[in-house]
Amino acid sequence: MFADCFPIWERLTPAWQDRLTACMYNKTFKKGEILYNGSGNCTGLLIIKTGQLRAYILSEEGREITIYRLLEMDMCLFSASCIMNSVRFDITVEAEKDSQVWIIPAEIYRQMMEESVVVANYTNEIMASRFSDVMWLMEQIMWKSMDRRVAAFLLEELSLEGQMRLKLTHEEIANHLGTHREVITRMLRYFQSEGIIRMSRGVVEVLDTKRLQQMQ
Amino acid sequence: MFADCFPIWERLTPAWQDRLTACMYNKTFKKGEILYNGSGNCTGLLIIKTGQLRAYILSEEGREITIYRLLEMDMCLFSASCIMNSVRFDITVEAEKDSQVWIIPAEIYRQMMEESVVVANYTNEIMASRFSDVMWLMEQIMWKSMDRRVAAFLLEELSLEGQMRLKLTHEEIANHLGTHREVITRMLRYFQSEGIIRMSRGVVEVLDTKRLQQMQ
Repeated sequence: MFADCFPIWERLTPAWQDRLTACMYNKTFKKGEILYNGSGNCTGLLIIKTGQLRAYILSEEGREITIYRLLEMDMCLFSASCIMNSVRFDITVEAEKDSQVWIIPAEIYRQMMEESVVVANYTNEIMASRFSDVMWLMEQIMWKSMDRRVAAFLLEELSLEGQMRLKLTHEEIANHLGTHREVITRMLRYFQSEGIIRMSRGVVEVLDTKRLQQMQ
Repeated sequence: MFADCFPIWERLTPAWQDRLTACMYNKTFKKGEILYNGSGNCTGLLIIKTGQLRAYILSEEGREITIYRLLEMDMCLFSASCIMNSVRFDITVEAEKDSQVWIIPAEIYRQMMEESVVVANYTNEIMASRFSDVMWLMEQIMWKSMDRRVAAFLLEELSLEGQMRLKLTHEEIANHLGTHREVITRMLRYFQSEGIIRMSRGVVEVLDTKRLQQMQ
């Protein structure tokens, strides 16, 4: 049910509930598909029904860094950044797993925000939450060394996947953390020599979670 | 006049205009004074009447990085972050010049946001604008080398100060950019050897603005 994913549903007027029900739709994305790439289009608000999305930025040279992840029931605002004049950055949103997503057309949401103080303040809280994610990331980048960032990333993956065998290439980890593949390869080799992980082709198996927790 | 600094003044109800006029106050801060330091207190919303503020974050070791600057008529939201549940980061706000500031008590603003869709959406735009500043900074940190960041910083200072002689120590520049003093000293020596700047005690004089623009 859409209402379960949209915590302010009960506080919308019946007229808006009807209108939303009529206008929104859902769509399935395969793992790896790009849902939004910032170049002028305005996909709309995304609410994740099942699956997992990743929002990242790209450098001119094609390097990536993950800004935040969106899990079930999370809402993506910046895929509708056209409705907010003051947003001056572009993100790309990719399906990290096969995902089912509700889409609220941007124009409908803009009207809701303009009319409803509940929707406007809800949007505010979502933006503040993403802002906090980015500030956390900034602090990591500024003050933490790469070994601690890799440890924190592997722990996050463990909790997302719920298993010790992580299907991840060195390239993928580098793209999450905004660094070069070689840096990650060197770091993982060190982790392996310390008995913290075991590497095989496209897989990082975590052996010692406690050590990772101490490192991060 | 406060109304001149608060673009949505005309769209507030007369009752709210009266209430705001009664509750807000203004305060003077000397250059270098801390207006807000995030540790639990909730100063309120700050609107800059005259002067210049700097918002920055601190590492555990006391290193700084400037997140954004606030100039005349800008509003600082995060000095009232207690009114937004989803803000999970702390900034420090310091007067960079002698400043006069309007202060709207946090609780009053929270009530305005809850009642008025105009205030809620205005807050949204301000947050989106600061978010964009931070995303810009993140891109700088991730993808730009330090020489380009120092060049961009000096150009920003030129436009803020309106003169070629900048009163800045190497330590201060390092604190803006989140790096060590030694890194800045080395970079400025290189700039000086190239004839881009001239250094003297506590002063950086820019000689070649064009070169800085080409570098950034």
